[in-house]
Order: sequence, then structure tokens, then C-alpha cells
Amino acid sequence: MGYTEQDWKAINSIRLLAVDATFNSNSGHPGAPMGMAPVAHVLFNKFMKFNPKNPNWLNRDRFVLSNGHGCMLQYALLHLYGYGVSIDDLKKFRTVDSITPGHPEAHDTPGIEVTTGPLGQGISNAVGLAIAQAHTAAVYNKDGFNVSDNYTYTFLGDGCLMEGVSGEASSLAGHLQLGNLIAVYDDNHISIDGDTNVAFTEDVVKRYESFGWEVLVVDDGDNDLDSIEKAIAKAQQSKDKPTLIKLRTTIGFGSLQQGTHGVHGSPLKADDIKQLKEKFGFNPEQSFAVPQEVYDLYNKHAAEGAAAEEEWNKLFAKYGEKYPTEAKDLSRRLKGDLPEGWEKSLPVYTPADPAIASRKLSETVLQKIHEIVPELVGGSADLTGSNLTRWKEAVDFQAPATGLGSYAGRYIRYGVREHGMGAIMNGLAAYGTIIPYGGTFLNFVSYAAGSVRLSALSQIRTIWVATHDSIGLGEDGPTHQPIETLAHFRALPNNMVWRPADGNETSAAYYVTLTSKHTPSIIALSRQNLPQLEGSVIEKGIKGGYVLHEDANADITLVSTGSEVCICVDAVKYLKEKHNIAARVVSMPCTEVFDAQPKDYKLSVLPDGKPIMSVEVMSTLGWERYSHEQFGINRFGASGPYKDVYKKFEFTPEGIAKRAVATVDFWKDVPNVRSPLNRAFQQII
Amino acid sequence: MGYTEQDWKAINSIRLLAVDATFNSNSGHPGAPMGMAPVAHVLFNKFMKFNPKNPNWLNRDRFVLSNGHGCMLQYALLHLYGYGVSIDDLKKFRTVDSITPGHPEAHDTPGIEVTTGPLGQGISNAVGLAIAQAHTAAVYNKDGFNVSDNYTYTFLGDGCLMEGVSGEASSLAGHLQLGNLIAVYDDNHISIDGDTNVAFTEDVVKRYESFGWEVLVVDDGDNDLDSIEKAIAKAQQSKDKPTLIKLRTTIGFGSLQQGTHGVHGSPLKADDIKQLKEKFGFNPEQSFAVPQEVYDLYNKHAAEGAAAEEEWNKLFAKYGEKYPTEAKDLSRRLKGDLPEGWEKSLPVYTPADPAIASRKLSETVLQKIHEIVPELVGGSADLTGSNLTRWKEAVDFQAPATGLGSYAGRYIRYGVREHGMGAIMNGLAAYGTIIPYGGTFLNFVSYAAGSVRLSALSQIRTIWVATHDSIGLGEDGPTHQPIETLAHFRALPNNMVWRPADGNETSAAYYVTLTSKHTPSIIALSRQNLPQLEGSVIEKGIKGGYVLHEDANADITLVSTGSEVCICVDAVKYLKEKHNIAARVVSMPCTEVFDAQPKDYKLSVLPDGKPIMSVEVMSTLGWERYSHEQFGINRFGASGPYKDVYKKFEFTPEGIAKRAVATVDFWKDVPNVRSPLNRAFQQII
Repeated sequence: MGYTEQDWKAINSIRLLAVDATFNSNSGHPGAPMGMAPVAHVLFNKFMKFNPKNPNWLNRDRFVLSNGHGCMLQYALLHLYGYGVSIDDLKKFRTVDSITPGHPEAHDTPGIEVTTGPLGQGISNAVGLAIAQAHTAAVYNKDGFNVSDNYTYTFLGDGCLMEGVSGEASSLAGHLQLGNLIAVYDDNHISIDGDTNVAFTEDVVKRYESFGWEVLVVDDGDNDLDSIEKAIAKAQQSKDKPTLIKLRTTIGFGSLQQGTHGVHGSPLKADDIKQLKEKFGFNPEQSFAVPQEVYDLYNKHAAEGAAAEEEWNKLFAKYGEKYPTEAKDLSRRLKGDLPEGWEKSLPVYTPADPAIASRKLSETVLQKIHEIVPELVGGSADLTGSNLTRWKEAVDFQAPATGLGSYAGRYIRYGVREHGMGAIMNGLAAYGTIIPYGGTFLNFVSYAAGSVRLSALSQIRTIWVATHDSIGLGEDGPTHQPIETLAHFRALPNNMVWRPADGNETSAAYYVTLTSKHTPSIIALSRQNLPQLEGSVIEKGIKGGYVLHEDANADITLVSTGSEVCICVDAVKYLKEKHNIAARVVSMPCTEVFDAQPKDYKLSVLPDGKPIMSVEVMSTLGWERYSHEQFGINRFGASGPYKDVYKKFEFTPEGIAKRAVATVDFWKDVPNVRSPLNRAFQQII
Repeated sequence: MGYTEQDWKAINSIRLLAVDATFNSNSGHPGAPMGMAPVAHVLFNKFMKFNPKNPNWLNRDRFVLSNGHGCMLQYALLHLYGYGVSIDDLKKFRTVDSITPGHPEAHDTPGIEVTTGPLGQGISNAVGLAIAQAHTAAVYNKDGFNVSDNYTYTFLGDGCLMEGVSGEASSLAGHLQLGNLIAVYDDNHISIDGDTNVAFTEDVVKRYESFGWEVLVVDDGDNDLDSIEKAIAKAQQSKDKPTLIKLRTTIGFGSLQQGTHGVHGSPLKADDIKQLKEKFGFNPEQSFAVPQEVYDLYNKHAAEGAAAEEEWNKLFAKYGEKYPTEAKDLSRRLKGDLPEGWEKSLPVYTPADPAIASRKLSETVLQKIHEIVPELVGGSADLTGSNLTRWKEAVDFQAPATGLGSYAGRYIRYGVREHGMGAIMNGLAAYGTIIPYGGTFLNFVSYAAGSVRLSALSQIRTIWVATHDSIGLGEDGPTHQPIETLAHFRALPNNMVWRPADGNETSAAYYVTLTSKHTPSIIALSRQNLPQLEGSVIEKGIKGGYVLHEDANADITLVSTGSEVCICVDAVKYLKEKHNIAARVVSMPCTEVFDAQPKDYKLSVLPDGKPIMSVEVMSTLGWERYSHEQFGINRFGASGPYKDVYKKFEFTPEGIAKRAVATVDFWKDVPNVRSPLNRAFQQII
């Protein structure tokens, strides 16, 4: 309330920075920033709590631009508030190696919370941030000590609402009664194909009400700052429902082409910019010009944020006196470090231990470490009993009113929502106090490919507990049996795919995934039992690949992963007995981690001299990188008991031996077989 | 109405076949079939029009079991109605090489329309089937000749409703006013994690109303056959809205564990089965026993279906007399054949033609062939102007009442719903009269990975027009630049990934994708302009890989795809001039099609003797299969003008030459370099 000329100056400064930057770079989306500048101004300057000098302050309000193509809105705000984004950075918008890329990237730009642009992700990340806040508050807040009470705000457009992932996450947010989440829907009636009436005529208000959200409507988002402010204030009062504010705006407000698709994804023309600056009372001859009064206005709010952090720091210092354990724990979490000595809780096995499915071995890890690693917050996309992702004593993360759990609970019932789970995990990880993991069948991690890719790009620590990892799942059949999945996620940069062969390798997988602060992981786990292998130890497993069975006189090396390693071990005996062929076995639970080892080590594992054959029951694509010949399945699987299915595809000691013999024979005339690790030049990584 | 003991015998026969088959196989889901048997009986026996002797009759009603894990329901019905599914097939449920796999597979089992099991897909396929019906009717029906007037029915569970893909497709179905679509929601309150109240408390009725659906509620789906019948009859009267019937059922009805998670995914115990059979008046000592009166009842309806087809055949014969062109065209479409000579419309280019982006070349193909290939029905996930997927004269597929198009229109505005688009395309292709294509950025095909995989498994012809296919899209940056995407989809069995280098290769790509009846395709297309290459002709392109530039004295072969081929051509000159190195260039627009060529041909393209280096601006994973050294990008891209981005990653003639020199040098001591195509043994494909 009480908005003045100065506020409109600020709003128009945001608009013109977006206009100038897109024009200057001849690329980008001016329309959304121009339409959303009023609500951004009200939200940031009247409501949001943040300190530009410390973008990592725990209790800052979170802001997510789900319609990430409108990122000049956010870059302009970051600049105006004094984050580390200069006018020069804005001039480098969408140029190589700038901190102002075409869509917001969290690891690049101070003040960006999550990486957005792929539609539907941001709003779903925001659900994760809100869950993380509710959980952090429930765990750490004490009487008189609101260590965490921030809100999560997100802006989203029609595109985000059309994407299924946002529906999944929003339905769950309603179920979880996340009153700390406030979303502003930019209802501008325009998407790339033109008027949204060509494809999107559903009743959004009704849909979000059906999800259990509070929905507010603001009819004039272009001019009516008072109504915007009232709506946000009201949303803050909604304590057991997330709020969607449907805000009618005009895309490209002020442009000669306002309200049309013409301003969505292309810079404005020079004459349009001229009239716009004149209309807004700016000098049309100047670009990237911000009135000092705008800086002053925003600096004032930034200073209030700095003061608020200062207050919080004092509060937290007192909290530390009264609750030293909690304070220490929270500080540790925020650094991303694990509790000292936690790894001693990882289970260790010997070959005398019984055969156990690796999904069950994973459950044992979670059971053993959940107490000492309290930041682990898990869940499953409605496959808890199959994924074995829940430790016995776990409490569900549920709204207290439901009687089904509490916000301090560490187990999330995601429902059958893999993509939503992936995006929510990205938000959980981004908050700073949680290491999230989520379970589903390996095949259905693909449903979440859009989010998995963003975990990797954002350099955050999320973990997929991906069970039923091959044709070995048996009866469910080809619709559920991954073939292409490991190749897919191995090709994804900055992502670890683990496929442990036994108990020690499962512990190794958890060790590396949990200690890798900036790399997400997928742990592929078997449904069927696997023996504890001779030669497998955690210390070797954490190298990603190692010699499980050595033979100085080997004719061939078998390199394998997961459930096929034990069959390779049996094949070694078979080869010796039936063919007098000596074979080594290399277990390679994680190619990405193996790739990062010193070359000497790698060549000791996969040396020159003799041929190497890979053995893995799925697509062979990519195994040519580590082997001369590949045994796999480049077709879809089959429905049946798992032993029958393995037999059908000859994944037996005999089937492996047959191909090993062919490999030895094929390469016998080559004098000194070169290891595939030897390369003419370095890859760009 | 007027249901008798005989009807309940039939219903209980279905239940017991599901119980016996899951018990016999010791695997599977009895609960859903037991709960849904009543509605299945009413739907199939009172409403559905089908002829078991000809599962391919065009005008049959379509049925999709979206909760595919309940497939014993469908297998039982197929058996009882006399489709080619015997009691023996039911006994082989979930065993290797049976026609009764763990989830329904369309290409395996007569009477299965689409492959389901991965949740959310079936209901979305059903939307595609309904669109296809509406389109077929609009194109072919004439006064007095309702050639197509079938309904599409689908059953779905909570899991399907939680998945985002179903929300995408359902929102679009409401927008498109598909009155021919009727969905029955099995509201049994149980999912794998237990009671649905742990994760799924949204108001489904309200949500589907918000999508523009008619929603009906039946409170007692276990007993009240009359209400079920009334609801379906009412749904049939809803002409401009799809209908969701929310049907309250008891999962595992009749079991001692009915209504609990215990009957969801495991066979019943022997004593439970005994009491169940006694309760239903069946002999507890018998298994797979169907009373003759049930066969009689169902045979009667099957005979009615056969008679209906006979009627239709007569109608269609008369139609053929009056509308010979249309009748011939429809018959041709149903065989999957293209019009004779259509390929003459494919554009042909010479090196004198200007450089054009391959997305634009793709648009030209569509523009040239849309008239002669009327079964092409295209669309885009709200990127029409970027994907260039719309020919000039296209009419939108829209409900006539909207004034925005007609059901005869061949361009679908999918909205920002990639996954929904993929699943809908699968339904469109399954109907039999349409070849669907859909546009998005290559990076966002990943959002639809779940559907793309099912296109491949189902062996159907769908086409993704996947533009902005690399870092060459430039400014949008890493969030939009595919790195892992091609490796992912190349690892997927029975899927073609095309990446044409110029106009002739784009025509070749369309030629092969359109004539491959049982294989889906992804055509990766550039945003940036590409020159028309010397040596590129359609006849070579359709082999998937060919020698673009030959040199009998070559020191090295460069194998490349798409936008990098022309840079390789420039690198050849550079290598000759600066390093006196002779190089051949192989263009490889589709590795899967190349793989299928005779070995002699393949070895003539990638021969023994000299090293081969691959060049593609994304993950190198898998290129080891065709080359000794790989130049690619195993990291995320960068935001900037595309030439700057290519330069950053050294995808320039100089950058390629530098690595080619290293490759020649590295391999110079190896006397006769083996082509990577030479293998010790055949892969399992």
C-alpha cells in the first residue's frame, strides 16, 4: 500500500533492463519480465527477506523462477539489490562464460536458488524447498527460536502448468499442507503457439483447489499493486494450504506488441524500445540506465535484509548456547559435511555371509546409517515395499493434522510420481539441510529424466535408489525391464551410475554418493539375491572399478557390474575346466568414478595385452569404451521367472564362457592388444 | 439391467481365472481384476462392439487397461470371448515366450490394443485412440455411412491418476471435447504403499471437471451392476466431453484380505482361494474351470460382434461403390502402406542450393508430402514456430464448436506436454489410420522417455521432429542443449535416431521413418543453417551411413552426423593443406539403419586399415562402436551465440584437425588397424 512514483520507476527499471539486455544480446524473452515486473517488485520489496551480501543465509526466503526463460527479470532484480551481478554481467546476457546464461543456473549466479528453464521443474523444486523448510523448522526450531521460518515463492507460467511434473508436485504439496509455499501464476494468455486457448482451456483455479491449495485471483497484475500486495499477505496467512495467486498480466506490458506472442521470445525492435522508454519517462538515448532513486529504494530493502540476517545470527548464537548439539549439527549440514566417523556404520560383509538382493543390502545400509546421518530424507514413488527404502523406525513426513506422521518425519510418501519426486529432490537438496534419496524401479527413473538431468547440471547431491535393475526382475516383463537406462544416465555428465555386485560394493556406493557434494547418483539394485564375493572390499569398490579376481596368466579379462559379476566368477571356473582358458574378473560398479582414477591405476585394472569382454544384461552401448567385445542385450527383455529369463538370454557361466572363447580366438593373432583406455587425445569434460 | 445369476457366474469366472493364473505362476496382481470384474463384465457384454475373430476390425470399440498390472482381467476376457488366448496360455501367464506376459503387450497378444503397465500411459494412449477415431470419422464418414463411430474405453487406477502424463493427456482431452472417450477410475483406495490417503488426497472429481470432463460417480462397483450400466450409458450420451466414471470398488473382492494392500501384487493363499471358490459356488478342487454357461453367454456377445462387423463390411462395400477414392485410401492406410509414388515428392538438393537449417528442411518435406500422405497427423508441444512442424495450409485438429479448426484438421496443438504428446502419439499410431509426428526440442524428448520406450516396445510408427538438436541451438544454454540424449535413444532397442546433415539426408530420414511400419523414429534437426553437401544423395542416406568423401590414400576416416559433417568436410581441406594428411568422411545419419546393412557394405564404409575418428557435439558414449577415437562433449554446454559455443568446444575445422592429427599419430605403429565393426561374436538383438 502507499505505492509511489518511485515504485513505478523501479518496476519500469526492471522492465527496461530486460528490454535492453535482450536487445543488446539479440536473444531472449522480454515479454515475461515486462509483465511480471509489478508483482516481482511488490514481492521482493515488501515481503521477501534476503541479504544480497550473503546469498546462502539459511533463513532467507527462497525465490524460484519456474518460467526460467524470463530470467532477465531475475537477473535485473539481482543486480538492483546488489547481488554479485553487475550491469556488465547484464550486458553479457546469453554470451559464452557469462554468469547470465539463457536460463538461470544455480551453480553459476549468486542468488539463483535452482536451475530452471525446462518447464514445470521450478514449481516442483519449490515444493521441495518448502518441504525442506517445514522439515528444518520441525527438527530445529525451539520455543523462542524460529531458526527456520522462511517462505518459498515461485513464479510460473502457462507452460509450467501444462507440464505433468508440476501437477504431480502440486498434488503432493496440497496433500502435505505446505502453507509456506506461495506460487504466482502469470496468467498472460500467451504461449509460443499463440493464444493459450488453442491448447489450454482447463480451469486452473478449480484444478488447484482440487489439489487442496488456496487459490487467489488478482485481475489486474499490470497496475493494481495494492491487490497484489493484499493477495501475497493473504497467502502468507494460509498456514495449512499452499497458495496459488492467479495474476492476470499483459505480456510485454508497454510494448507496441504487448499482449501478443510477438514479445514472448524475441527482443523488441529499436523503435518500440524508444517509445517504451519515453512512455516510462526514461531517456530513450540511454541503455542499461537505472535511476539512482531505484538503487536507493532497493538498497534500503537489502539493508533491511542484512539487518534481519544479523538478528538471525544473534538468535542462532543464543540458540547455540542453549542447544549446542542442534546448532553444531545444523552448521555441519549447511557445509554439506557428514558427521565424523559416520562411515563406520556402513555394513561390511565376508564371503561367508549369505546371498542377499542388493535392494535388501541397500535397506541394511539405510537402517544402519539413518541415525548417524540425520540429514538423510528418503522416500519412494509408491514402491516402498519393493524398493526397501524405509528403515524400520522411520516416521512419515506428513502434515501433523493428518495423524499420519509429522514434519519432522524423514520418509516421504511421494505417490506414483517419479518426475515430481525427482524435481522435489532437487529442491530438497537445494535448501541446504537435507540429503534426499528416492526409490523407484530403475526403468522408471526415465520418467524423471528431465529432473535427473537438472540434478547433474545443478551439481547437487540427490540419490536414486533404483531397484529391479534389469531383466532379473523377472515376471513383470519388458515394460519394466531396463535396457537403455544405464547407457542413458552414463552419458549424462556429472552423474554417477552405481551398480553394486554385493554387500561391500553397496556400502561403497553409499559411501561415494553421500560424500560427493556436487554430483547426483543413481544406485541400480537387484531384486534377486547376490552372493558376497571373494575379493570385494569397500576400499576397492569406492574406486569405481577394481580387479576382483586376478590371474597373472589370464587370456582374457571379464569386466562386469552388479548381478552379472557373480556369474562371471562362475564362468572363470567353467572356462578353466572346459576350455583351459584363464580369465581375470574386473568389477566395475561405477564407470564415472573409475574414469576419475589415475591412469596408472586404470591401466592396472584394464591393462594392455589381452582382450577384455564386458558382461552386463542390458544395452552394450558404451561398453566399447572399456572392452574389446561386449556381451549384453540389445533388444527388449522377457516376462518370466528370472532364472528362465537369464537362461533365455544366455547370461549363465556357459553363455559367458562361449563368448569368452570366441573373444580369445578372435584376438589371438593380435600381438599386443591395446587397452581401450589408451586414447589419442583427451575428451572435453 | 435385468442381470441374473449367469452374469455373476461370468464375473466370478473372470475373478477366479485371475486368481488361478496368479497362483499357478506364483506371480502377478489378482486384486484389480477381482475388483474390476463387475464393470468389465457390464462394459464388455452390454456395450462393447468387437469381433474376437478379427481383432483388427477398424470400427471395433477400443479398450485400454491403463492399470496394466491387472492384465489377468484382460487376458481372462480375451479367453472367454474367444480371442486367440487359450486356457493353456493363461496357465503360461508370466512365463518366458508366452503371449500372456506380466503386462499387456500389443504386438504379442490378439486383442491387446496398446502396451501398458508403466502407469499413466494407457489413459493417455486412450486419448490418442479417441483423437484418431474423431479424425477418422471426420475425414471418412459420409451421410448414411458411419464408417467410424467406435468408442474408446479405458480402465485406470490411482497410480495412473498420480502420474503427470495422465494429467497432460486428460487436460488436452477435455480441451478437445472428446465425447468418444470413456474412462473408468478404479477407486479402490489402495496402492502399493497402502492406503492412498498417505499420498493422494486430491479431489479427483473436481480435477477432472476442471479439465472439462463429465464426471460420474458409482458408489458400489462391487455389486451394483445397474448403476454401472446407467453410468456407461450416460457417458455415451456425453457428446462434447470425455467422461470419467469414478467407481468405488473393493480390491481383491471376495478374498479374506479384500480391501487391503495384501491382494494387490501377490497371489492369494491356497486356503483363501478355497473359501473364495466355495463362496462363489465354484468347485474348490478345480482350477481354470469356466462354466459352460459363461462361455455361452460370452460367445453370444462375440457372435453379435461378428454380425456387427459383417454389417459394417456390407456398409463399407457400399461406401466403396459411392466413394471409391476414400474407400481405397482408407484400406491402404489400414495396411500401413503409403500411397504409390509418394516418395517422388521428397525434395532433392544439389550443392548449389543454399545452406538451410535442417529443421527448415524438415518443414519443406512436410510441406511437399502432406498432400500425398494424408495419414500424416502432426503437431508440436507448443513450439510450432521453432520446430517448423506445420505446413502452410494446415487446419488445426480442434473441436468444431471452438471455431479454431475441425476434427478433420491434421495439426494438433499439444500444449507444453511432451510426455502427453508421446503417449497420445502411441494411441494415434495404434488406431491404424494415422502416422503421427510431434515436435519439440531434442532435449525435451527426454521428458517423454516413458512413452518413447513404449513406442519402440510396441513396434509402432511414431516420429519425433526433434529440433534444436545440440549446443548449436546457442543462447538458450545448457538447460536446453542435449548432451546425453542421442546416446539414450540409440541404446533403446527398435528405435531409429536420425540426424541428417543436409537436405538430401533429411529427405532420406523421412523416407525411412515413414516406410518403417514397426519402428519409431526421432529425427534430430538443427536450428542453425547447414550447407548442401557434395556427395550426399537420398539413395545413400537411406543406408544410415555412407562414404560422403572418398580418398583411396586416406590416413584417417572421420565419421560424423548432422551439423558436424560439413565441418568435417572443411577439416579435410585443412588437414591436407596444413598437415598433408588425407582423410575420408563418412556421414552416419542413423546408426541403427547402418547396423542393419550387410557386413560387406558396412566394412566398405568403415574399413580395416586406418584409424577412424567420430565427430559429434555431444556425449561420445557409444561412438566407440564405430570409431577408434571420439571427439565430442562429455560435459554440459554453454549459453551464447552458436558460433561462439562451437568455438569454445573447438568444433571447428582446426579443432577437428588437431584431434585427427593426434589420432593418426597414435595409431601409426599399429600395422593393420582393425575396423571396430569386426566383432568376435554376434550381439543378442
